[in-house]
Amino acid sequence: MSELTPLPIITLTTDFGLDDVFVGVMKGVILGIAPEASLVDITHAIPSHDILAGSQVLRSSHPFFPTGTIHVVVVDPGVGGSRRPILAVTDKGYFVAPDNGVLSPLFGETPPPEVFHLSNDRYFLKPISTTFHGRDIFAPAAAWLSRGVLPQEFGPQISDPVRLDLPKLNQMGPGEWTGQILSIDKFGNLITNIERGAIQLNEMTSEPFVIELRGYRITRLVQSYSGGTKDQPFGIWGSSGYLEIAISESSAAKIMQVAKGEPFILRVPSLWNGSP
Amino acid sequence: MSELTPLPIITLTTDFGLDDVFVGVMKGVILGIAPEASLVDITHAIPSHDILAGSQVLRSSHPFFPTGTIHVVVVDPGVGGSRRPILAVTDKGYFVAPDNGVLSPLFGETPPPEVFHLSNDRYFLKPISTTFHGRDIFAPAAAWLSRGVLPQEFGPQISDPVRLDLPKLNQMGPGEWTGQILSIDKFGNLITNIERGAIQLNEMTSEPFVIELRGYRITRLVQSYSGGTKDQPFGIWGSSGYLEIAISESSAAKIMQVAKGEPFILRVPSLWNGSP
Amino acid sequence: MSELTPLPIITLTTDFGLDDVFVGVMKGVILGIAPEASLVDITHAIPSHDILAGSQVLRSSHPFFPTGTIHVVVVDPGVGGSRRPILAVTDKGYFVAPDNGVLSPLFGETPPPEVFHLSNDRYFLKPISTTFHGRDIFAPAAAWLSRGVLPQEFGPQISDPVRLDLPKLNQMGPGEWTGQILSIDKFGNLITNIERGAIQLNEMTSEPFVIELRGYRITRLVQSYSGGTKDQPFGIWGSSGYLEIAISESSAAKIMQVAKGEPFILRVPSLWNGSP
Repeated sequence: MSELTPLPIITLTTDFGLDDVFVGVMKGVILGIAPEASLVDITHAIPSHDILAGSQVLRSSHPFFPTGTIHVVVVDPGVGGSRRPILAVTDKGYFVAPDNGVLSPLFGETPPPEVFHLSNDRYFLKPISTTFHGRDIFAPAAAWLSRGVLPQEFGPQISDPVRLDLPKLNQMGPGEWTGQILSIDKFGNLITNIERGAIQLNEMTSEPFVIELRGYRITRLVQSYSGGTKDQPFGIWGSSGYLEIAISESSAAKIMQVAKGEPFILRVPSLWNGSP
Repeated sequence: MSELTPLPIITLTTDFGLDDVFVGVMKGVILGIAPEASLVDITHAIPSHDILAGSQVLRSSHPFFPTGTIHVVVVDPGVGGSRRPILAVTDKGYFVAPDNGVLSPLFGETPPPEVFHLSNDRYFLKPISTTFHGRDIFAPAAAWLSRGVLPQEFGPQISDPVRLDLPKLNQMGPGEWTGQILSIDKFGNLITNIERGAIQLNEMTSEPFVIELRGYRITRLVQSYSGGTKDQPFGIWGSSGYLEIAISESSAAKIMQVAKGEPFILRVPSLWNGSP
Repeated sequence: MSELTPLPIITLTTDFGLDDVFVGVMKGVILGIAPEASLVDITHAIPSHDILAGSQVLRSSHPFFPTGTIHVVVVDPGVGGSRRPILAVTDKGYFVAPDNGVLSPLFGETPPPEVFHLSNDRYFLKPISTTFHGRDIFAPAAAWLSRGVLPQEFGPQISDPVRLDLPKLNQMGPGEWTGQILSIDKFGNLITNIERGAIQLNEMTSEPFVIELRGYRITRLVQSYSGGTKDQPFGIWGSSGYLEIAISESSAAKIMQVAKGEPFILRVPSLWNGSP
């Protein structure tokens, strides 16, 4: 179990947006319990109710925080229903969230996290609502954790947290897969579900892969966004460890008219025995 | 008068948006005076010049902050004109704002707040502009307050702050009112101006109310957003204490095509003697 | 060289937006190195790759922060290529950015800043990527600076940082210039490139200038946004020191249909000898 940092950091990831009072209210509740907490917004722009998108944000952000950081992730379409609020504890930190799969990226880690059901209402904000557990359960749990309350004091350990799988590459034949665009970043770069190391590419060749996407055929792997051309899409290993499709100083999403979820075909010539 | 918190919290609510430098500049000014202040954004997405929207945000957020918190609310169409900058002090905290009604939700409280005219230019940033009092008056006032300057040092107490009324339900007959949609949240839930407790509903019945809105007839009251159906709007008590119209995992605003300000009719059968 | 503040402030200005994890990840990296840092977002809404817009944000925001503040500015289309990462040190503070001109507003100051090439990989996050130097170089540099690492420890001093010029007024004849709209703020006010003091206006006259923009003829100079009329655009000295074109309680940009970059003609009657 990880040590708390001396100055506790609490990160917030939600689908609440920044236009309403939700995020500010969560911060008020946290600071009322833990005035010294250092609050960091990851993003509040998760599409409403998109648990998978929330889990991808968690996966891409938490490794860059110091050991002992407390991460609060609230994408919670089942608020007020029967889904459990949980706390997962890993070597790296603490994770407070609804038990709907949004913490899935942690469950593949070794050793697996210890997971607790947040059921002790001593650490809830009262009266507890049925509509805003970010305020009433998750924010107070994070704040009390930062004050040194032990995980087991929040409730019993559980062994069956909900686990969702990120969309994986789907093998069609030797050296051939179908995949999809996981997300699109602010620059219009297309983040694929090709994870670094998942498939062995021969990066020394001029054509380490062929991606067929929306009528485009992408074969070049470049090292930097400015290393490609402004009129042709290329592949690049992005900062989160996925292969991205990009166009130098332009939005690949706009130019190629690609949206989140768009399918593609991946072929790896060095692994592929079919006719070219 | 409230005690200051040991680590002073200063919240910011404005109509400045996050694209320009306005909010960052206010924070620079505050930290120059009060480096230990803990700054919390409530929202900066108040529609430009919408004083009522600002006052609703204040009403929904400040109760969740610790006693002694300093709240800065800048929705200020009259900046540089004759409207006064003011400070209101309640049992709960300090409120710095232009005197245009944006602090109205405080003025109904008992005991009423003490209100001061921020006129002592010793606590202004100089040279003072006529276009950005968020930077030149409100941010410095909050910072100096957090440093222990007493309210009366900022200027004389006043007894006539501007007060605006939130749009109220309008009684049409026994058990019948007209109301309006106060705001729409990020999830597309419609926040009505039916305040919890303002009208006695018999929540034990299957039809505690009838709301007629845009051709829809809403009669069900549910306890959680996931407790309704995905094809029919329902009523739910929201986290700010207003009745909301929602659709499970969808945007009621989009599906029902309802905008802020939309009028509706509310009937309460248990109070209503007309024909059904 | 400026003194560091006791509680180090680190500001962040980027074109990363708030929807992705980029900004949160930079903060995680900073807090891992400098847990006591006070982080302030200026804006993350710089248009993608718009170096000039980033430099204007820097120019308008940094003077309002205390001496010793560390400013991180990441608008970095050349990330992973040959452009250098740099640190500029002035009497006011520290500025960490790619060497692409985004720090240009500093280079006209007297005395000129000392500029260092951030080349010592001891202060990089490893493994360093070719796609996200905000995380791998700029965030760590800011954090180590706040911990007391001296500028020269990051790398050698350089004398040739890239410098871009903001679009200037272009003199056409006596008392006549062409200019352009530099940016548009959240309220729809049009910020021109007429800098206060750059041209001598006789502000005592009723027509200190004539601006011809999109078929409008703007001649009035008012002191406050509410001091004009709601149907006619007027000029006003804005909070960043530029002349703005505004309409009371409306968006001049919308009503006049003006976008960023729009050209205009400026005439100053008191300096102009042509026929009116």
